[in-house]
Amino acid sequence: MDNILEKLGAVLEERRQASPDSSYVSSLHAAGMDKILKKVGEESAETLIAAKAAEFGGSLDDVVYETADLWFHSLVMLSHLGLSHKEVLKELERRFGLSGIDEKASRDS
Amino acid sequence: MDNILEKLGAVLEERRQASPDSSYVSSLHAAGMDKILKKVGEESAETLIAAKAAEFGGSLDDVVYETADLWFHSLVMLSHLGLSHKEVLKELERRFGLSGIDEKASRDS
Amino acid sequence: MDNILEKLGAVLEERRQASPDSSYVSSLHAAGMDKILKKVGEESAETLIAAKAAEFGGSLDDVVYETADLWFHSLVMLSHLGLSHKEVLKELERRFGLSGIDEKASRDS
Amino acid sequence: MDNILEKLGAVLEERRQASPDSSYVSSLHAAGMDKILKKVGEESAETLIAAKAAEFGGSLDDVVYETADLWFHSLVMLSHLGLSHKEVLKELERRFGLSGIDEKASRDS
Repeated sequence: MDNILEKLGAVLEERRQASPDSSYVSSLHAAGMDKILKKVGEESAETLIAAKAAEFGGSLDDVVYETADLWFHSLVMLSHLGLSHKEVLKELERRFGLSGIDEKASRDS
Repeated sequence: MDNILEKLGAVLEERRQASPDSSYVSSLHAAGMDKILKKVGEESAETLIAAKAAEFGGSLDDVVYETADLWFHSLVMLSHLGLSHKEVLKELERRFGLSGIDEKASRDS
Repeated sequence: MDNILEKLGAVLEERRQASPDSSYVSSLHAAGMDKILKKVGEESAETLIAAKAAEFGGSLDDVVYETADLWFHSLVMLSHLGLSHKEVLKELERRFGLSGIDEKASRDS
Repeated sequence: MDNILEKLGAVLEERRQASPDSSYVSSLHAAGMDKILKKVGEESAETLIAAKAAEFGGSLDDVVYETADLWFHSLVMLSHLGLSHKEVLKELERRFGLSGIDEKASRDS
């Protein structure tokens, strides 16, 4: 299942070229960065809400669903800037070559 | 490079068992869901800020870095609920079997 | 101008009783907490985007507008829980009886 | 209690001039817009988490506390841009001269 992000990246690039009327992805690019970022923020909020609800017996499917929405819209954001999942995965790979708590200690956030 | 999430998922599960003193991942699980979700929200905000700055010439590396942080903390959230990247990728795969604008139209968010 | 929050609080309570068809406030309460919180998260994202844009010459009116949206939706959230601006202002008053950096140091976030 | 925001606005301006070592407000301004916006995003996330928990019996005091944090950091953001609570209250007053669902329908968000 590991090449799903690869396939999704290709689909996102293809749909970016489509008419905004026929593709949600294309309509996001046409609306511009603010619209895309607003969606990232919105889906982040929905992920928090679903995960907090899951602590109290709420649906795990909702958490999966909202996280998929969050990742999807962040992929569109990357694509809008000429980036892709590849750079993000490479950064995660680089970071996790580090061991233990170092993966966090090595950065200042 | 496609099995990075797979390898990362294994590392996250392994570190979850480690002492909170020696692993950032383990310290997040020990602190609990609210701490993990606070980090997801914080990294989402940092992603928005970096992406908005990139529109005005800001660093693309920052966008990659913050998105990696966002994905990483959402993976820890999934793990805290007994879920993983697998369920999210499966949902994205299912959704993108749909064509064009349908991937959005099929849901009510 | 200082009693604007007072007047707004009264309007919010009044509209809460209205038909969801005739009042946006009432429609939010009818939709429930998740919808209200989703709006708080969305308006928070829009505030970040507008404020970041303002650093690069973007409109200050947009920042005011989005912050008003953020405060408004957080007032609806408070009202949904039987709270109001009064408790929040009291907390701010209490906190700012403290001096200097103490207002932050006194808490663990 | 209505002049609390007025008094708080004055305190925020005064502390802005203080040394970053002696005032949290001043340290935020010294760190810059990205730091301030990161805090707004973080406090927004904490507000969502507390409000969602309150639905399941969590503390209302926590909701008040986190909302105070959210408003406080948005006031610092406004101040960093040369704005204040006054412009936001004026916008809310203007908007709520409108009746019923119109306050929302009049805008495109």
